[in-house]
Amino acid sequence: SEVKVAILTVSDTVSSGAGPDRSGPRALSVISSLSEKLGGAQVVAKAVVPDEVEKIKDALKNWSDVDRIDLILTLGGTGFTPRDVTPEATKAVIEKETPGLVYVMLQESLKVTPFAMLSRAAAGIRGSTLIINMPGNPNAVAECMEALVPALKHALKQIKGDKREKHPRHV
Amino acid sequence: SEVKVAILTVSDTVSSGAGPDRSGPRALSVISSLSEKLGGAQVVAKAVVPDEVEKIKDALKNWSDVDRIDLILTLGGTGFTPRDVTPEATKAVIEKETPGLVYVMLQESLKVTPFAMLSRAAAGIRGSTLIINMPGNPNAVAECMEALVPALKHALKQIKGDKREKHPRHV
Amino acid sequence: SEVKVAILTVSDTVSSGAGPDRSGPRALSVISSLSEKLGGAQVVAKAVVPDEVEKIKDALKNWSDVDRIDLILTLGGTGFTPRDVTPEATKAVIEKETPGLVYVMLQESLKVTPFAMLSRAAAGIRGSTLIINMPGNPNAVAECMEALVPALKHALKQIKGDKREKHPRHV
Ligand code: NA
Repeated sequence: SEVKVAILTVSDTVSSGAGPDRSGPRALSVISSLSEKLGGAQVVAKAVVPDEVEKIKDALKNWSDVDRIDLILTLGGTGFTPRDVTPEATKAVIEKETPGLVYVMLQESLKVTPFAMLSRAAAGIRGSTLIINMPGNPNAVAECMEALVPALKHALKQIKGDKREKHPRHV
Repeated sequence: SEVKVAILTVSDTVSSGAGPDRSGPRALSVISSLSEKLGGAQVVAKAVVPDEVEKIKDALKNWSDVDRIDLILTLGGTGFTPRDVTPEATKAVIEKETPGLVYVMLQESLKVTPFAMLSRAAAGIRGSTLIINMPGNPNAVAECMEALVPALKHALKQIKGDKREKHPRHV
Repeated sequence: SEVKVAILTVSDTVSSGAGPDRSGPRALSVISSLSEKLGGAQVVAKAVVPDEVEKIKDALKNWSDVDRIDLILTLGGTGFTPRDVTPEATKAVIEKETPGLVYVMLQESLKVTPFAMLSRAAAGIRGSTLIINMPGNPNAVAECMEALVPALKHALKQIKGDKREKHPRHV
Protein backbone atom coordinates (compact mmCIF):
# COMPACT_ATOMS: atom_id res chain seq x y z
CA SER A 1 0.00 0.00 0.00
CA GLU A 2 1.02 3.63 -0.46
CA VAL A 3 0.58 4.70 3.14
CA LYS A 4 1.05 2.07 5.85
CA VAL A 5 -1.03 2.72 8.95
CA ALA A 6 -0.84 0.94 12.32
CA ILE A 7 -3.38 1.20 15.12
CA LEU A 8 -2.46 0.75 18.77
CA THR A 9 -5.31 0.36 21.23
CA VAL A 10 -4.05 1.33 24.69
CA SER A 11 -6.34 -0.10 27.35
CA ASP A 12 -5.97 -2.21 30.47
CA THR A 13 -9.55 -3.41 30.01
CA VAL A 14 -9.16 -4.57 26.43
CA SER A 15 -5.66 -5.92 27.00
CA SER A 16 -6.78 -8.11 29.91
CA GLY A 17 -9.77 -9.42 28.01
CA ALA A 18 -12.23 -7.75 30.40
CA GLY A 19 -13.90 -5.77 27.62
CA PRO A 20 -14.16 -5.45 23.84
CA ASP A 21 -12.04 -3.12 21.71
CA ARG A 22 -14.54 -0.58 20.44
CA SER A 23 -12.04 2.08 19.31
CA GLY A 24 -9.77 -0.14 17.20
CA PRO A 25 -12.43 -1.33 14.73
CA ARG A 26 -13.80 2.20 14.49
CA ALA A 27 -10.38 3.64 13.70
CA LEU A 28 -9.88 0.96 11.08
CA SER A 29 -13.15 1.90 9.45
CA VAL A 30 -12.28 5.62 9.58
CA ILE A 31 -8.91 5.01 7.91
CA SER A 32 -10.59 2.83 5.32
CA SER A 33 -13.12 5.50 4.42
CA LEU A 34 -10.43 8.21 4.28
CA SER A 35 -7.92 6.01 2.45
CA GLU A 36 -7.88 7.95 -0.80
CA LYS A 37 -7.66 11.36 0.91
CA LEU A 38 -4.64 10.07 2.81
CA GLY A 39 -2.85 9.03 -0.38
CA GLY A 40 -3.84 5.36 -0.36
CA ALA A 41 -3.82 4.53 3.34
CA GLN A 42 -4.18 0.96 4.53
CA VAL A 43 -4.09 -0.47 8.05
CA VAL A 44 -1.30 -3.05 7.99
CA ALA A 45 -0.92 -3.65 11.73
CA LYS A 46 -3.08 -3.62 14.85
CA ALA A 47 -2.23 -4.32 18.47
CA VAL A 48 -3.56 -3.89 21.97
CA VAL A 49 -1.36 -2.99 24.96
CA PRO A 50 -2.16 -2.19 28.59
CA ASP A 51 -1.75 1.36 29.94
CA GLU A 52 1.96 0.90 30.63
CA VAL A 53 4.67 3.27 29.40
CA GLU A 54 7.21 0.59 28.43
CA LYS A 55 4.69 -1.54 26.52
CA ILE A 56 3.46 1.50 24.60
CA LYS A 57 7.00 2.67 23.83
CA ASP A 58 8.02 -0.80 22.59
CA ALA A 59 5.09 -0.96 20.18
CA LEU A 60 5.76 2.54 18.84
CA LYS A 61 9.47 1.87 18.39
CA ASN A 62 9.00 -1.48 16.66
CA TRP A 63 6.45 -0.10 14.23
CA SER A 64 8.59 2.98 13.49
CA ASP A 65 12.08 1.53 13.35
CA VAL A 66 11.52 -2.06 12.16
CA ASP A 67 8.24 -2.08 10.26
CA ARG A 68 8.65 1.42 8.78
CA ILE A 69 5.01 2.30 9.35
CA ASP A 70 4.03 5.71 7.92
CA LEU A 71 1.30 6.63 10.38
CA ILE A 72 0.66 5.23 13.86
CA LEU A 73 -2.57 6.10 15.63
CA THR A 74 -2.77 5.34 19.33
CA LEU A 75 -6.25 5.04 20.83
CA GLY A 76 -6.91 5.90 24.47
CA GLY A 77 -4.85 6.59 27.56
CA THR A 78 -4.81 10.37 27.01
CA GLY A 79 -7.03 11.41 29.93
CA PHE A 80 -6.40 12.42 33.55
CA THR A 81 -6.65 9.07 35.38
CA PRO A 82 -3.53 7.66 37.04
CA ARG A 83 -3.28 4.90 34.42
CA ASP A 84 -3.41 7.32 31.44
CA VAL A 85 0.19 7.46 30.20
CA THR A 86 -0.04 7.32 26.40
CA PRO A 87 1.19 10.92 25.90
CA GLU A 88 4.16 10.34 28.20
CA ALA A 89 5.16 7.18 26.29
CA THR A 90 4.72 9.00 22.99
CA LYS A 91 6.77 12.03 24.01
CA ALA A 92 9.54 9.67 25.12
CA VAL A 93 9.92 8.19 21.61
CA ILE A 94 9.23 11.06 19.21
CA GLU A 95 12.16 13.07 17.87
CA LYS A 96 10.12 16.05 16.72
CA GLU A 97 6.89 17.43 18.15
CA THR A 98 4.04 18.42 15.81
CA PRO A 99 2.05 20.89 17.95
CA GLY A 100 -0.11 22.10 15.07
CA LEU A 101 -1.74 18.68 14.84
CA VAL A 102 -2.52 18.77 18.56
CA TYR A 103 -3.93 22.27 18.11
CA VAL A 104 -6.40 21.34 15.35
CA MET A 105 -7.56 18.21 17.18
CA LEU A 106 -8.29 20.33 20.27
CA GLN A 107 -9.89 23.09 18.21
CA GLU A 108 -12.26 20.72 16.41
CA SER A 109 -13.10 18.43 19.30
CA LEU A 110 -13.84 21.38 21.61
CA LYS A 111 -16.59 22.30 19.17
CA VAL A 112 -18.21 18.95 20.02
CA THR A 113 -17.73 18.89 23.80
CA PRO A 114 -15.94 20.88 26.50
CA PHE A 115 -14.62 17.57 27.87
CA ALA A 116 -12.19 17.66 24.94
CA MET A 117 -10.07 19.98 27.09
CA LEU A 118 -9.20 16.87 29.12
CA SER A 119 -7.31 15.41 26.19
CA ARG A 120 -3.58 15.35 26.86
CA ALA A 121 -2.86 13.97 23.37
CA ALA A 122 0.62 14.38 21.91
CA ALA A 123 1.82 13.99 18.32
CA GLY A 124 5.20 13.87 16.65
CA ILE A 125 7.67 12.33 14.26
CA ARG A 126 10.06 9.44 14.84
CA GLY A 127 12.28 8.72 11.83
CA SER A 128 9.86 8.71 8.92
CA THR A 129 6.85 7.73 11.04
CA LEU A 130 4.14 10.11 12.23
CA ILE A 131 2.66 9.16 15.60
CA ILE A 132 -0.63 10.71 16.72
CA ASN A 133 -2.46 10.13 19.99
CA MET A 134 -6.22 9.81 19.56
CA PRO A 135 -8.87 9.68 22.30
CA GLY A 136 -10.24 6.31 23.34
CA ASN A 137 -13.78 7.31 22.49
CA PRO A 138 -14.74 5.81 19.12
CA ASN A 139 -16.66 8.88 17.91
CA ALA A 140 -13.83 11.16 18.86
CA VAL A 141 -11.42 9.22 16.67
CA ALA A 142 -13.51 10.09 13.63
CA GLU A 143 -13.73 13.75 14.66
CA CYS A 144 -9.98 14.04 15.20
CA MET A 145 -9.21 12.38 11.87
CA GLU A 146 -11.59 14.80 10.13
CA ALA A 147 -9.65 17.68 11.66
CA LEU A 148 -6.33 16.34 10.40
CA VAL A 149 -7.27 15.02 6.98
CA PRO A 150 -6.96 18.31 5.03
CA ALA A 151 -3.19 18.31 5.61
CA LEU A 152 -2.34 14.73 6.58
CA LYS A 153 -1.54 13.34 3.13
CA HIS A 154 0.77 16.28 2.66
CA ALA A 155 2.36 15.70 6.07
CA LEU A 156 3.11 12.09 5.24
CA LYS A 157 4.78 13.05 1.95
CA GLN A 158 6.90 15.70 3.69
CA ILE A 159 8.10 13.21 6.28
CA LYS A 160 9.40 11.01 3.48
CA GLY A 161 11.41 13.97 2.22
CA ASP A 162 9.41 14.84 -0.87
CA LYS A 163 10.93 18.18 -1.84
CA ARG A 164 8.02 19.17 -4.03
CA GLU A 165 5.97 19.00 -0.87
CA LYS A 166 8.19 21.32 1.08
CA HIS A 167 6.70 24.74 0.48
CA PRO A 168 2.97 24.89 0.35
CA ARG A 169 1.57 27.88 2.16
CA HIS A 170 2.72 28.29 5.76
CA VAL A 171 5.25 25.54 6.13
CA SER B 1 -14.48 19.24 51.99
CA GLU B 2 -14.95 17.25 48.80
CA VAL B 3 -12.40 19.12 46.72
CA LYS B 4 -9.47 20.73 48.51
CA VAL B 5 -8.13 23.83 46.78
CA ALA B 6 -4.96 25.79 47.55
CA ILE B 7 -4.05 29.20 46.18
CA LEU B 8 -0.48 30.33 45.70
CA THR B 9 0.09 34.02 45.01
CA VAL B 10 3.45 34.42 43.28
CA SER B 11 4.65 38.00 43.60
CA ASP B 12 7.79 39.75 44.79
CA THR B 13 5.70 42.80 45.60
CA VAL B 14 3.15 41.03 47.77
CA SER B 15 5.74 38.75 49.33
CA SER B 16 7.91 41.67 50.45
CA GLY B 17 4.96 43.56 51.86
CA ALA B 18 5.33 46.35 49.28
CA GLY B 19 1.80 45.87 47.96
CA PRO B 20 -1.52 44.17 48.67
CA ASP B 21 -2.54 40.73 47.33
CA ARG B 22 -5.37 41.56 44.95
CA SER B 23 -5.41 38.25 43.07
CA GLY B 24 -5.55 35.90 46.06
CA PRO B 25 -8.81 37.20 47.55
CA ARG B 26 -10.37 37.31 44.09
CA ALA B 27 -9.40 33.72 43.36
CA LEU B 28 -10.84 32.69 46.72
CA SER B 29 -14.12 34.38 45.87
CA VAL B 30 -14.18 32.76 42.40
CA ILE B 31 -13.64 29.29 43.89
CA SER B 32 -16.30 29.98 46.47
CA SER B 33 -18.87 30.96 43.85
CA LEU B 34 -18.01 27.96 41.66
CA SER B 35 -17.78 25.54 44.60
CA GLU B 36 -20.77 23.42 43.66
CA LYS B 37 -19.83 23.19 39.96
CA LEU B 38 -16.42 21.96 41.04
CA GLY B 39 -17.88 19.16 43.13
CA GLY B 40 -17.80 20.93 46.50
CA ALA B 41 -14.59 22.93 46.27
CA GLN B 42 -13.19 24.72 49.28
CA VAL B 43 -10.00 26.74 49.67
CA VAL B 44 -8.10 25.06 52.50
CA ALA B 45 -4.72 26.73 52.07
CA LYS B 46 -3.30 30.05 50.88
CA ALA B 47 0.27 31.29 50.64
CA VAL B 48 2.37 34.00 49.07
CA VAL B 49 5.85 33.40 47.66
CA PRO B 50 8.29 35.64 45.77
CA ASP B 51 9.01 35.05 42.06
CA GLU B 52 11.66 32.41 42.78
CA VAL B 53 11.70 28.96 41.21
CA GLU B 54 12.72 27.06 44.35
CA LYS B 55 10.16 28.75 46.59
CA ILE B 56 7.39 28.07 44.09
CA LYS B 57 8.45 24.45 43.65
CA ASP B 58 8.58 23.88 47.41
CA ALA B 59 5.05 25.18 47.89
CA LEU B 60 3.71 23.07 45.01
CA LYS B 61 5.44 19.92 46.25
CA ASN B 62 4.34 20.33 49.86
CA TRP B 63 0.72 20.92 48.92
CA SER B 64 0.75 17.98 46.47
CA ASP B 65 2.75 15.38 48.33
CA VAL B 66 2.08 16.19 52.00
CA ASP B 67 -1.26 17.98 52.13
CA ARG B 68 -2.85 16.03 49.28
CA ILE B 69 -4.49 19.11 47.82
CA ASP B 70 -6.78 18.35 44.86
CA LEU B 71 -6.37 21.59 42.95
CA ILE B 72 -3.62 24.18 43.20
CA LEU B 73 -4.04 27.51 41.47
CA THR B 74 -0.97 29.70 41.13
CA LEU B 75 -1.55 33.39 40.56
CA GLY B 76 0.96 35.52 38.64
CA GLY B 77 4.48 35.11 37.36
CA THR B 78 3.39 33.86 33.92
CA GLY B 79 4.43 36.86 31.83
CA PHE B 80 7.59 37.86 29.93
CA THR B 81 9.55 39.82 32.57
CA PRO B 82 12.84 38.39 33.85
CA ARG B 83 11.27 37.61 37.24
CA ASP B 84 8.34 35.64 35.76
CA VAL B 85 9.22 32.00 36.42
CA THR B 86 5.99 30.37 37.60
CA PRO B 87 5.62 28.18 34.46
CA GLU B 88 9.21 26.98 34.75
CA ALA B 89 8.72 26.02 38.43
CA THR B 90 5.45 24.31 37.57
CA LYS B 91 6.86 22.32 34.66
CA ALA B 92 9.67 21.16 36.94
CA VAL B 93 7.25 19.51 39.39
CA ILE B 94 4.40 18.17 37.24
CA GLU B 95 4.53 14.56 36.08
CA LYS B 96 1.96 14.92 33.30
CA GLU B 97 1.16 17.96 31.18
CA THR B 98 -2.46 18.94 30.54
CA PRO B 99 -2.18 21.01 27.34
CA GLY B 100 -5.94 21.09 26.72
CA LEU B 101 -6.42 23.22 29.84
CA VAL B 102 -3.80 25.67 28.61
CA TYR B 103 -5.52 25.72 25.23
CA VAL B 104 -8.94 26.67 26.56
CA MET B 105 -7.54 29.33 28.88
CA LEU B 106 -5.74 30.91 25.89
CA GLN B 107 -8.78 30.53 23.66
CA GLU B 108 -11.12 32.23 26.12
CA SER B 109 -8.79 34.94 27.37
CA LEU B 110 -7.79 35.92 23.83
CA LYS B 111 -11.45 36.78 23.29
CA VAL B 112 -11.05 39.40 26.03
CA THR B 113 -7.67 40.87 25.10
CA PRO B 114 -4.80 40.19 22.66
CA PHE B 115 -2.40 40.60 25.59
CA ALA B 116 -3.52 37.13 26.63
CA MET B 117 -1.01 35.81 24.09
CA LEU B 118 1.65 36.87 26.58
CA SER B 119 0.52 34.24 29.03
CA ARG B 120 3.09 31.49 29.38
CA ALA B 121 0.82 29.53 31.77
CA ALA B 122 1.43 25.80 32.23
CA ALA B 123 -0.82 23.15 33.77
CA GLY B 124 -0.36 19.56 34.78
CA ILE B 125 -0.74 16.72 37.25
CA ARG B 126 1.52 15.75 40.14
CA GLY B 127 0.37 12.62 41.94
CA SER B 128 -3.34 13.21 42.45
CA THR B 129 -3.03 17.01 42.40
CA LEU B 130 -3.94 19.23 39.47
CA ILE B 131 -1.78 22.37 39.23
CA ILE B 132 -2.89 25.26 37.04
CA ASN B 133 -1.07 28.54 36.43
CA MET B 134 -3.40 31.52 36.37
CA PRO B 135 -2.54 35.10 35.39
CA GLY B 136 -1.84 37.63 38.13
CA ASN B 137 -4.61 39.91 36.97
CA PRO B 138 -7.68 39.45 39.22
CA ASN B 139 -10.22 39.67 36.39
CA ALA B 140 -8.29 37.19 34.31
CA VAL B 141 -8.48 34.59 37.08
CA ALA B 142 -12.26 34.63 36.83
CA GLU B 143 -12.17 34.38 33.05
CA CYS B 144 -9.76 31.44 33.10
CA MET B 145 -11.80 29.59 35.71
CA GLU B 146 -14.94 30.11 33.60
CA ALA B 147 -13.12 28.52 30.66
CA LEU B 148 -12.14 25.48 32.73
CA VAL B 149 -15.25 24.92 34.83
CA PRO B 150 -17.25 22.87 32.28
CA ALA B 151 -14.74 20.01 32.62
CA LEU B 152 -12.86 20.69 35.84
CA LYS B 153 -15.05 18.69 38.23
CA HIS B 154 -14.69 15.79 35.87
CA ALA B 155 -10.93 16.27 35.65
CA LEU B 156 -10.59 16.17 39.43
CA LYS B 157 -12.57 12.92 39.63
CA GLN B 158 -10.47 11.33 36.90
CA ILE B 159 -7.25 12.23 38.69
CA LYS B 160 -8.48 10.34 41.73
CA GLY B 161 -8.94 7.29 39.54
CA ASP B 162 -12.71 7.24 39.33
CA LYS B 163 -13.27 4.60 36.62
CA ARG B 164 -16.81 5.73 35.93
CA GLU B 165 -15.30 9.03 34.92
CA LYS B 166 -12.88 7.54 32.46
CA HIS B 167 -14.74 7.62 29.19
CA PRO B 168 -16.90 10.63 28.63
CA ARG B 169 -16.69 11.90 25.10
CA HIS B 170 -13.16 12.60 23.83
CA VAL B 171 -10.98 11.38 26.63
CA SER C 1 17.30 51.87 17.22
CA GLU C 2 14.78 51.23 19.97
CA VAL C 3 14.09 47.59 19.10
CA LYS C 4 16.86 45.62 17.43
CA VAL C 5 15.60 42.85 15.15
CA ALA C 6 17.61 40.07 13.48
CA ILE C 7 16.38 37.77 10.73
CA LEU C 8 17.72 34.26 10.22
CA THR C 9 16.80 32.50 6.99
CA VAL C 10 17.12 28.76 7.53
CA SER C 11 17.41 26.99 4.19
CA ASP C 12 19.79 24.50 2.58
CA THR C 13 18.80 25.86 -0.82
CA VAL C 14 19.52 29.49 -0.07
CA SER C 15 22.61 28.70 2.00
CA SER C 16 24.19 26.68 -0.82
CA GLY C 17 23.43 29.35 -3.39
CA ALA C 18 21.03 27.07 -5.26
CA GLY C 19 18.13 29.49 -4.90
CA PRO C 20 17.23 33.04 -3.89
CA ASP C 21 16.17 34.11 -0.38
CA ARG C 22 12.56 35.11 -0.86
CA SER C 23 11.54 35.08 2.82
CA GLY C 24 14.33 37.24 4.20
CA PRO C 25 13.60 40.38 2.13
CA ARG C 26 9.88 39.93 2.78
CA ALA C 27 10.41 39.71 6.55
CA LEU C 28 12.60 42.81 6.38
CA SER C 29 9.84 44.68 4.60
CA VAL C 30 7.22 43.46 7.10
CA ILE C 31 9.33 44.64 10.06
CA SER C 32 9.92 47.93 8.34
CA SER C 33 6.20 48.54 7.81
CA LEU C 34 5.38 47.52 11.41
CA SER C 35 8.34 49.38 12.91
CA GLU C 36 6.32 51.98 14.80
CA LYS C 37 3.81 49.44 16.18
CA LEU C 38 6.76 47.44 17.49
CA GLY C 39 8.18 50.42 19.37
CA GLY C 40 10.70 51.51 16.74
CA ALA C 41 11.88 48.21 15.31
CA GLN C 42 14.81 48.05 12.93
CA VAL C 43 16.48 45.06 11.31
CA VAL C 44 20.13 45.30 12.37
CA ALA C 45 21.32 41.82 11.33
CA LYS C 46 20.53 39.22 8.70
CA ALA C 47 22.02 35.82 8.03
CA VAL C 48 21.39 32.59 6.16
CA VAL C 49 22.21 29.15 7.56
CA PRO C 50 21.56 25.63 6.27
CA ASP C 51 19.00 23.36 7.97
CA GLU C 52 21.47 22.18 10.61
CA VAL C 53 20.80 22.29 14.34
CA GLU C 54 24.26 23.44 15.40
CA LYS C 55 24.45 26.24 12.84
CA ILE C 56 21.01 27.51 13.83
CA LYS C 57 21.85 27.33 17.55
CA ASP C 58 25.13 29.21 17.04
CA ALA C 59 23.38 32.04 15.22
CA LEU C 60 20.65 32.31 17.87
CA LYS C 61 23.15 32.28 20.74
CA ASN C 62 25.47 34.86 19.20
CA TRP C 63 22.65 37.25 18.45
CA SER C 64 21.14 36.81 21.93
CA ASP C 65 24.20 36.70 24.14
CA VAL C 66 26.72 38.84 22.26
CA ASP C 67 24.75 41.25 20.09
CA ARG C 68 21.87 41.66 22.55
CA ILE C 69 19.25 41.53 19.82
CA ASP C 70 15.70 42.20 21.08
CA LEU C 71 13.77 40.08 18.59
CA ILE C 72 15.03 37.25 16.38
CA LEU C 73 12.79 35.90 13.65
CA THR C 74 13.79 32.61 12.06
CA LEU C 75 12.36 31.87 8.62
CA GLY C 76 11.75 28.29 7.46
CA GLY C 77 12.68 24.83 8.65
CA THR C 78 9.48 24.37 10.67
CA GLY C 79 7.79 21.71 8.53
CA PHE C 80 7.75 17.91 8.52
CA THR C 81 10.63 17.07 6.17
CA PRO C 82 13.70 15.31 7.58
CA ARG C 83 15.80 18.46 7.17
CA ASP C 84 13.33 20.69 9.08
CA VAL C 85 14.99 21.22 12.49
CA THR C 86 14.51 24.91 13.29
CA PRO C 87 12.09 24.25 16.22
CA GLU C 88 14.48 21.70 17.73
CA ALA C 89 17.39 24.15 17.54
CA THR C 90 15.24 26.90 18.99
CA LYS C 91 13.93 24.81 21.89
CA ALA C 92 17.53 23.88 22.71
CA VAL C 93 18.52 27.52 23.29
CA ILE C 94 15.45 29.20 24.81
CA GLU C 95 15.17 29.45 28.58
CA LYS C 96 11.44 30.13 28.69
CA GLU C 97 8.75 28.98 26.29
CA THR C 98 6.09 31.43 25.08
CA PRO C 99 3.25 29.11 24.04
CA GLY C 100 0.70 31.91 23.65
CA LEU C 101 2.65 33.29 20.70
CA VAL C 102 2.63 29.87 19.05
CA TYR C 103 -1.10 29.64 19.72
CA VAL C 104 -2.00 32.92 18.01
CA MET C 105 0.21 32.18 15.01
CA LEU C 106 -1.55 28.83 14.56
CA GLN C 107 -4.97 30.37 15.18
CA GLU C 108 -4.50 33.09 12.57
CA SER C 109 -2.67 31.07 9.93
CA LEU C 110 -5.23 28.25 10.12
CA LYS C 111 -7.79 30.80 8.99
CA VAL C 112 -5.76 31.14 5.78
CA THR C 113 -4.96 27.49 5.08
CA PRO C 114 -5.33 24.09 6.76
CA PHE C 115 -1.68 23.41 5.86
CA ALA C 116 -0.82 25.74 8.72
CA MET C 117 -1.34 22.74 11.02
CA LEU C 118 1.97 21.47 9.64
CA SER C 119 3.83 24.29 11.32
CA ARG C 120 5.97 23.03 14.17
CA ALA C 121 7.04 26.58 15.07
CA ALA C 122 8.39 27.26 18.56
CA ALA C 123 8.92 30.56 20.36
CA GLY C 124 10.62 31.59 23.57
CA ILE C 125 12.94 33.84 25.53
CA ARG C 126 16.70 33.62 25.94
CA GLY C 127 18.13 36.28 28.25
CA SER C 128 16.45 39.47 27.07
CA THR C 129 15.91 38.21 23.52
CA LEU C 130 12.62 36.96 22.12
CA ILE C 131 13.05 34.23 19.47
CA ILE C 132 10.14 33.34 17.19
CA ASN C 133 10.05 30.70 14.48
CA MET C 134 8.25 31.84 11.35
CA PRO C 135 7.28 29.74 8.33
CA GLY C 136 9.48 29.85 5.24
CA ASN C 137 6.63 31.00 3.05
CA PRO C 138 6.93 34.77 2.48
CA ASN C 139 3.19 35.45 2.72
CA ALA C 140 2.94 33.47 5.92
CA VAL C 141 5.57 35.64 7.58
CA ALA C 142 3.34 38.67 7.13
CA GLU C 143 0.30 36.80 8.45
CA CYS C 144 2.13 35.56 11.54
CA MET C 145 3.51 39.02 12.31
CA GLU C 146 0.00 40.45 12.01
CA ALA C 147 -1.18 37.93 14.58
CA LEU C 148 1.59 38.90 17.02
CA VAL C 149 1.73 42.65 16.57
CA PRO C 150 -1.09 43.61 18.98
CA ALA C 151 1.02 42.41 21.93
CA LEU C 152 4.58 42.25 20.61
CA LYS C 153 5.72 45.76 21.57
CA HIS C 154 4.46 45.05 25.03
CA ALA C 155 6.23 41.68 25.11
CA LEU C 156 9.55 43.27 24.20
CA LYS C 157 9.21 45.86 26.97
CA GLN C 158 8.36 43.17 29.52
CA ILE C 159 11.42 41.12 28.56
CA LYS C 160 13.60 44.13 29.36
CA GLY C 161 12.07 44.23 32.81
CA ASP C 162 9.88 47.27 32.46
CA LYS C 163 7.81 47.09 35.65
CA ARG C 164 5.13 49.42 34.31
CA GLU C 165 4.55 46.82 31.65
CA LYS C 166 4.07 43.99 34.07
CA HIS C 167 0.35 43.92 34.68
CA PRO C 168 -1.81 44.65 31.73
CA ARG C 169 -4.83 42.42 31.54
CA HIS C 170 -4.08 38.70 31.67
CA VAL C 171 -0.38 38.62 32.24
NA1 NA D 1 -8.52 28.30 18.71
